[in-house]
Amino acid sequence: MTDPTNLTLGRRVMAMIEELAQHSDEPGRLTRLYLSDAHRRAAEATLGLMQEAGLNAHIDALGSVIGRIEGSDPDAPALIIGSHIDSVVDAGRYDGNLGVVLGIVAIEALRRQGIAPACPIEVVAFGDEENVRFPTNLSTSHALAGLFNPAWLDGKDQDGVTLRDALVRFGGDPDGAAALARDPARTLGYLEVHIEQGPQLEAEDLAVGIVSAINGITRARATLIGEAGHAGTVPMHMRRDALAAVAEMIGIVERAGSIRTDTVATVGVAQVQPGAINVIPARVDFTLDARAPDDAVRQAMVQDITTECQAAAQRRGVNLSIEPFMDSPATPMDKGLIGQLENAVRSLGIEPLHLASGAGHDAVAMANLCPSAMLFVRCKGGISHNPAESITVEDADAAARVLIEAVKRIVA
Amino acid sequence: MTDPTNLTLGRRVMAMIEELAQHSDEPGRLTRLYLSDAHRRAAEATLGLMQEAGLNAHIDALGSVIGRIEGSDPDAPALIIGSHIDSVVDAGRYDGNLGVVLGIVAIEALRRQGIAPACPIEVVAFGDEENVRFPTNLSTSHALAGLFNPAWLDGKDQDGVTLRDALVRFGGDPDGAAALARDPARTLGYLEVHIEQGPQLEAEDLAVGIVSAINGITRARATLIGEAGHAGTVPMHMRRDALAAVAEMIGIVERAGSIRTDTVATVGVAQVQPGAINVIPARVDFTLDARAPDDAVRQAMVQDITTECQAAAQRRGVNLSIEPFMDSPATPMDKGLIGQLENAVRSLGIEPLHLASGAGHDAVAMANLCPSAMLFVRCKGGISHNPAESITVEDADAAARVLIEAVKRIVA
Repeated sequence: MTDPTNLTLGRRVMAMIEELAQHSDEPGRLTRLYLSDAHRRAAEATLGLMQEAGLNAHIDALGSVIGRIEGSDPDAPALIIGSHIDSVVDAGRYDGNLGVVLGIVAIEALRRQGIAPACPIEVVAFGDEENVRFPTNLSTSHALAGLFNPAWLDGKDQDGVTLRDALVRFGGDPDGAAALARDPARTLGYLEVHIEQGPQLEAEDLAVGIVSAINGITRARATLIGEAGHAGTVPMHMRRDALAAVAEMIGIVERAGSIRTDTVATVGVAQVQPGAINVIPARVDFTLDARAPDDAVRQAMVQDITTECQAAAQRRGVNLSIEPFMDSPATPMDKGLIGQLENAVRSLGIEPLHLASGAGHDAVAMANLCPSAMLFVRCKGGISHNPAESITVEDADAAARVLIEAVKRIVA
Repeated sequence: MTDPTNLTLGRRVMAMIEELAQHSDEPGRLTRLYLSDAHRRAAEATLGLMQEAGLNAHIDALGSVIGRIEGSDPDAPALIIGSHIDSVVDAGRYDGNLGVVLGIVAIEALRRQGIAPACPIEVVAFGDEENVRFPTNLSTSHALAGLFNPAWLDGKDQDGVTLRDALVRFGGDPDGAAALARDPARTLGYLEVHIEQGPQLEAEDLAVGIVSAINGITRARATLIGEAGHAGTVPMHMRRDALAAVAEMIGIVERAGSIRTDTVATVGVAQVQPGAINVIPARVDFTLDARAPDDAVRQAMVQDITTECQAAAQRRGVNLSIEPFMDSPATPMDKGLIGQLENAVRSLGIEPLHLASGAGHDAVAMANLCPSAMLFVRCKGGISHNPAESITVEDADAAARVLIEAVKRIVA
């Protein structure tokens, strides 16, 4: 084990993060969309880091960078450690990249410590996690899980370029996606380290936490139709004020998210018409985003929201339509791997905190292939998808030590 | 008294309304801004209607059309009957015009009935009630009250034309405003008939109602600053959701307006930032419009709203700033004239309903000069400032009979 006080691992992680952060499609800020020039350069840099660390590495047909070391039993199922190197527009440098870098650092450390794993270990840098450029859904990790949707190849970016053409330009192979599917029998498990992108670890003063499940998501668009009127002349009891009605519904949504454990429910959009100081609002278009680690809990929450909002609409004499357009199930993490992470965390003197992941990750796709688990790393202020995204070298070091410890236990 | 069953007066009113409605600045819809070409044509048409009705009429320095019949005592203080002939953009045909036309129809009827009033009666068609074109406030009626603000002359319309220049083009006299001020000692009172622009008379199944007061208005702009965050990753108890906070405040405003008699309180604007389905709102800019017939009640209501909203903000850890920018006092109508209207209404078999005016009117300005009162006429659905604005010929007839009856009692 590396000396925990000199932060050697943390510094190595941060150095690699800096190296990858050089590769951006835009000057002055980090933007690295799937299959862009910056993605190509970052993939090659990742390939180089893997090769330096002693991994046998290549870039696959969809642009994922995959490095591998063999185990003492070459036929044993492989442990995969991964995350992604694509980014949102004007991104932070840790989202995704941290998990890839930690996988490489973990292999380096195992080799330095002369540990020969019993099974193969792979490190994967997926390329399409943010799903910003093309209308896909975790396409590169779904490919490993055998769930690549061929229709994604015809999807276009905002310049009209298809995923198929972008893959060819990148140097990939649009027709090679199916062959990337792994055999579940030859896959031991998937581990992903990722910044939390939320404030819980900071609030609990913990460097890392163990993901219990990746939340399922319901999303809906709603429209409330009331009646416009003069703000001075229509008595309160005769109003059908669309905004006052939606205000009551936002309260319903907030309470529905608050009274359950680990659930969140958000109204992020509310557009008021006509939107004048002296006119009673006639119409409000708003959105619902509701998430829970348990699908039955989420469905009950959404049902309660719908029922209570419709009751409020009826009482107020206004018309509410709610149209759900996303119903993405929760992904519980594997109990066995969670146990290994828990042991690893405890062995380093850290209290194991279990928390749900509100955001989606490649682990959602990989969980279709094999037992999967995630370790979250504290990030400053819970801020992500923002240049202000930040972690400390101490936390990077702790995350590396936990990952190494967990991998040792899994591949022993 | 005209036979109430043949609707002669109502038909006469509607015919005059139709004649005035021809004069618009825009083809296909009614728009007649102060001092526009359409206003000039409508003023001349009004002048013609007054002259036909036997009034001695002229257009004054600010474009108001003023007709007069003398009383048996030429030195007696005059009764003024008025309203306005300017309009909003895409207006209805009754707002303002109805009160002017009814004044003319009332004089016609008195003359036809051979009634010689003891005092002079004037009918005034004000020109700047909507205050849409220039940054003024009831400038033409304030001029009669001796409260014309000379600074208004330098105000510009959206094309950069000053009120001063527009007056000259119209054929008016920018320097003649001061001379329009009436002597309170020579003014008996002011009567204005106007469509209700609200739904109360329709709900009570009454053709007309008596205005108790024109509400005072407080307006404020408010900004609530919370904290943006990922809608999936920030637990409910750690959020500082700007929209959830404002939703609670909209509820506070709605309750504050509802629990008092004759008050209204409205949030007509709410702009959410950043306004994305998966982002907790960081900021909401919203407005408050609060009205009451009694200033102390209004101020208490606004104080309660402010106190409760600040308490909610504090509890939620968000920052609320409320900046009032209008505090316009209520204008109680004159008790003596209200009594005359009440007697007139009762004499026609109509139950006298007293109601506050939520909107402003020329009577607000005229009340500074002399005892003033208003009669409201039912309008369909309470709709106004809209081409769908509508009244029935029966209600126009009833309004004419009430006005004639009231005038007879006042000038007897």
